[in-house]
Amino acid sequence: MVRARDGESRSGETDTGMSRLALSDGDREARNWFVATTESLGCSTTVDSMGNIFAVKKGKYKGPPTVVGSHLDTQPTGGRYDGILGVCAGVEMLRVLHEEKIETRFPVGVINWTNVACSEEGARFPISMVSSGVWAGQIPLEQAYSLQEVGGGKQTMKQELERIGYLGTMESSFSAMPIAASSIAHFELHIEQGPRLESQEQKIGVVHGVQAYRWHTIQVNGRDCHTGTTDFANRSDAMLTAAKMILHSHRLATKHSCLASTGILTLKPGSTNTVPGFVRFSLDIRAGEDDRLMMLEHELKVDFDKIAKNEAVDDLSESGTIGRGCTVEWTLDAPSEAIEFDENCIRCVDESARDLFGDEYEKFTQAMISGAGHDSVFCSKVAPTSMIFVPCRDGVSHNPTEYCSPTDCMNGAQVLMGAVLRYDVLRAQRSSM
Amino acid sequence: MVRARDGESRSGETDTGMSRLALSDGDREARNWFVATTESLGCSTTVDSMGNIFAVKKGKYKGPPTVVGSHLDTQPTGGRYDGILGVCAGVEMLRVLHEEKIETRFPVGVINWTNVACSEEGARFPISMVSSGVWAGQIPLEQAYSLQEVGGGKQTMKQELERIGYLGTMESSFSAMPIAASSIAHFELHIEQGPRLESQEQKIGVVHGVQAYRWHTIQVNGRDCHTGTTDFANRSDAMLTAAKMILHSHRLATKHSCLASTGILTLKPGSTNTVPGFVRFSLDIRAGEDDRLMMLEHELKVDFDKIAKNEAVDDLSESGTIGRGCTVEWTLDAPSEAIEFDENCIRCVDESARDLFGDEYEKFTQAMISGAGHDSVFCSKVAPTSMIFVPCRDGVSHNPTEYCSPTDCMNGAQVLMGAVLRYDVLRAQRSSM
Repeated sequence: MVRARDGESRSGETDTGMSRLALSDGDREARNWFVATTESLGCSTTVDSMGNIFAVKKGKYKGPPTVVGSHLDTQPTGGRYDGILGVCAGVEMLRVLHEEKIETRFPVGVINWTNVACSEEGARFPISMVSSGVWAGQIPLEQAYSLQEVGGGKQTMKQELERIGYLGTMESSFSAMPIAASSIAHFELHIEQGPRLESQEQKIGVVHGVQAYRWHTIQVNGRDCHTGTTDFANRSDAMLTAAKMILHSHRLATKHSCLASTGILTLKPGSTNTVPGFVRFSLDIRAGEDDRLMMLEHELKVDFDKIAKNEAVDDLSESGTIGRGCTVEWTLDAPSEAIEFDENCIRCVDESARDLFGDEYEKFTQAMISGAGHDSVFCSKVAPTSMIFVPCRDGVSHNPTEYCSPTDCMNGAQVLMGAVLRYDVLRAQRSSM
Repeated sequence: MVRARDGESRSGETDTGMSRLALSDGDREARNWFVATTESLGCSTTVDSMGNIFAVKKGKYKGPPTVVGSHLDTQPTGGRYDGILGVCAGVEMLRVLHEEKIETRFPVGVINWTNVACSEEGARFPISMVSSGVWAGQIPLEQAYSLQEVGGGKQTMKQELERIGYLGTMESSFSAMPIAASSIAHFELHIEQGPRLESQEQKIGVVHGVQAYRWHTIQVNGRDCHTGTTDFANRSDAMLTAAKMILHSHRLATKHSCLASTGILTLKPGSTNTVPGFVRFSLDIRAGEDDRLMMLEHELKVDFDKIAKNEAVDDLSESGTIGRGCTVEWTLDAPSEAIEFDENCIRCVDESARDLFGDEYEKFTQAMISGAGHDSVFCSKVAPTSMIFVPCRDGVSHNPTEYCSPTDCMNGAQVLMGAVLRYDVLRAQRSSM
């Protein structure tokens, strides 16, 4: 049985949260702790050319390890749970196996992935989950190496890997990993980063996949004019038009059970008494299935065009003066298809949760899909994968106030270890795995 | 009769427009031209302690002059007509009086006001129309003197007045002006800065007053959350709430025949995958009458509160998922009451337009109110005042593409001179004036 522990791997800790940017000195300390601790628990460790650290404990038979993976690096002003919980729960699993002298059938291990912090945006280098991406063959190594720090720094990712001593010699690749002839299986424990488990008073989310998202930049072109001297009928008000589009995206997303959000908006020229002729805003749309997402996007494109031209879309232009109209341009910044996790991995997680909760399994567990991206997205491209979610207070993440109770952390770690051990048994039963 | 002329006062001219910031070297050149030209046309010039230049030509009788006033300084990327047309038309009037050897009954003059550029925002120093404001006793001299340049410069307005040699010794005050025992009368010719005259194919706007405006900053407080992991019901989306408010302000303003505009909007934290918990936007509302404006403001306050709380306001929250709600705060930045111009001045302009257009007066002339503020607003507090508008292409102003045809400039200057001469006659007829 896993236990709550204290006092480990606190490099980068701030008064209220964590600031442990990828490949910083604090990250080096945490990596050194990870290597020393896992080796003391009987693992051999390997660092690949992206700085991903693989800690693997031998089993009775040879073969690729069944692994737990997440990340120790954080947002600039992050919390103590995002990523860290997943790695620490893996280390706790290793400790239990070591202390209880449990020998698994196949090797098991823990991976600390490099530069993951933040669900979809690298917190220090501008591609998140970049190193599981390289490992999974989804991102070219040279592209990853040449990434330059965001926020004014000049170092590249390769320079910083070298500087902190974590530029490994092993090729970062799921096929080249010497410990694995074929692919490993990957389990990841993570805080939900949303409010559903907490608001429904549930403890474990059995994650079946990751929703699709598409990020767009929408540009609305109108015409600057004086707010005092130009009547409504003679305006091409880009801000009013953008406001209608933002409201409409929310309504259409509601209709299709999708999500739509605007997190960035800039306008020009930007003075109180000038109607803006230019607005650019981000539109992040998400859905559990690709088809549904594309349907939403198609309808939004048709309707935004009408809104720009002041044609009728629902009641949006009613009760207001019809102006001269604007034009609208879409730019697709980041598409991400929906992910379905591996059936066997999901079953292992589910059964592990049943073990933990017994009769209260139904009460405390829900099947869900992940709203955000994780390393498991890239891993799932090349290896059987699934995830476990635990509640976080008020759904808050990427913030120093991020919190997951010790009990919830323990529950998650217990389900995680149970899933790995079940998968280990399953592999032995089924030679095909 | 006035004539179109070319080649005067081109300091600060750019390829496409004008950049003659108040108290810049270019402004000094234009001022020197103004002083030399008006003196050559028989005027004596006086500079007051705000750098306002009064060029006055004697009449048959003593008394305060009937003046034409506007400004030679411009926006950083301004046009060739905003303000400049009014001063140049005044100079043209002086030239006609001089060349035709016309002696007015009372003195007449032309004023170049300091730091006016932009209808309500100083383009170089951050209070517009500041110098007619000091002259009219509406702004304290010391406040004006200590104004510091916007955009990074360190100079104060007083330092720059000294530097270019236009810090006059005469007190800037309507009562201290040695040429005026009581107040002058003030006429101002200006481009409309809006599209009404042009779109109705009219030539002269007889301006009866200036609409009231109130500038507010609206702050919407929600809560940051992840766009992928937080469902609509659990969001406090400040951007969606602001979008509803902006749309609603347009609708309510339409209902009350007012104006409402948002020209500035900022949000935090500002990333594609974070629902913003903070939005701040400007709201510029305007109406011809103070009462109507205050009624609009009152309704907006009640409704914005409801919108923030997700209570029903029209159909705004229909078809969308109801979230957790936000709070809203209002800050009043700049109130400006409606101005009614002087009845006699308005009549003089009107009759002068009738003289110019004869039978086509109805076709080419409309009574209007000014959407933007002008020096005439401050002047009207202490002196009989009115304005004349001429069309500008597409309603564009504060922009290098600003354009008023030579014929429209001539029409405006003709009506301006006619109004001044009519007022001069009226003064002689009515001793009370």
